[in-house]
Amino acid sequence: MREGRLITVERDILEKNNRFARGNRRLFADAATLALNLVSSPGAGKTSLLVRTLGDLRGKAPLGVIEGDQQTSLDADRIRSTGVPAVQINTGKMCHLDASMIADALHQIPLPRRGVLFVENVGNLVCPAGFDLGEASKVVLVSVTEGEDKPLKYPDMFHAADLVIITKVDLLPHLEFDVEALEGNARRINRRADVLRLSTRTGEGLAAWYGWIDARRQQMVGA
Amino acid sequence: MREGRLITVERDILEKNNRFARGNRRLFADAATLALNLVSSPGAGKTSLLVRTLGDLRGKAPLGVIEGDQQTSLDADRIRSTGVPAVQINTGKMCHLDASMIADALHQIPLPRRGVLFVENVGNLVCPAGFDLGEASKVVLVSVTEGEDKPLKYPDMFHAADLVIITKVDLLPHLEFDVEALEGNARRINRRADVLRLSTRTGEGLAAWYGWIDARRQQMVGA
Repeated sequence: MREGRLITVERDILEKNNRFARGNRRLFADAATLALNLVSSPGAGKTSLLVRTLGDLRGKAPLGVIEGDQQTSLDADRIRSTGVPAVQINTGKMCHLDASMIADALHQIPLPRRGVLFVENVGNLVCPAGFDLGEASKVVLVSVTEGEDKPLKYPDMFHAADLVIITKVDLLPHLEFDVEALEGNARRINRRADVLRLSTRTGEGLAAWYGWIDARRQQMVGA
Repeated sequence: MREGRLITVERDILEKNNRFARGNRRLFADAATLALNLVSSPGAGKTSLLVRTLGDLRGKAPLGVIEGDQQTSLDADRIRSTGVPAVQINTGKMCHLDASMIADALHQIPLPRRGVLFVENVGNLVCPAGFDLGEASKVVLVSVTEGEDKPLKYPDMFHAADLVIITKVDLLPHLEFDVEALEGNARRINRRADVLRLSTRTGEGLAAWYGWIDARRQQMVGA
């Protein structure tokens, strides 16, 4: 295999992605839409948190969702049951969304002006890190059933995030898990990111998450 | 971006991979080494199951481990603490091991003749599916904290596996989780795979896992 050729192709892909990302970011700025790119391992609880969040924020701000999965529209179906417009992207063999997929999806749902667009990326702690979708922030979820060392083992993703959400904290009494060690490892990789702990099931920590979103939404509207 | 060119490069990569995979498979056959490629989301419990398995099987058969992670040698350190030879591969930006990395790692540890070589792939439910490492079987782990729909959302990986292990079943009393639905979804994607349920923590189900390994090891030795 000729490495030089592969690198050229990779650069072409990233350049194309970045052109679309810039276009998306301009759209979001014009509409004062806060776009959040949710990333995690499969099963960290992105969809569950989203469904709960949409239920709690509905009526307070315009909302929209873009769902990414390798296959199925199960997640978009769950999202639509909340009444919030959602579009599903199936990535097929690909392990991440890219900015052109977002640009295309934006033709299919109304842009939530002065509101929040949630993008749920493919469950994957590696690939989505390198692809800017035009979002305001990447939000990485990691559950207390995973392992304290995840930020060290997947540093690119944790480095790219503005917010680290530690999920499923209601399970802590049943686990041998050092949540302080996880938070410490996240902070070692990324000093500027905020860290929140929450349980979608019990509601613990959700107020802080909604506060984080609202502060950023105000910035977009004020900007 | 020129799609035709990208497809050519992808084909080059897979052809190179398959050449190395064939070489690895020949080595394993000559040494009657059962090579198992463990894949899962990050945090499904691959390393914990491996550490327990090595402790339980040590002295009964020659063992070896190849550890894949984007970064860190934390897992290989945990493995080596069991006394079993282990080599760590850091994949950097890559979301999977490939067969050439395995071929290279095999220069660094003794091949477990008439024994078992465990390969722990990068935690990822997408990328490792397409890369043959020369293993006898892919084994996919999915934990009861993830979600019943994972086989439907990541079908390539579940389709590629000969064994599906449902991990962390000791947590079932604390979860709203339908383990029958997960197993049914796995069987929808892949009818020929075996399915086991276990808890590394309590030891439930481990005997069946060791039985599964031993039956396959006997086949390699007999072949």
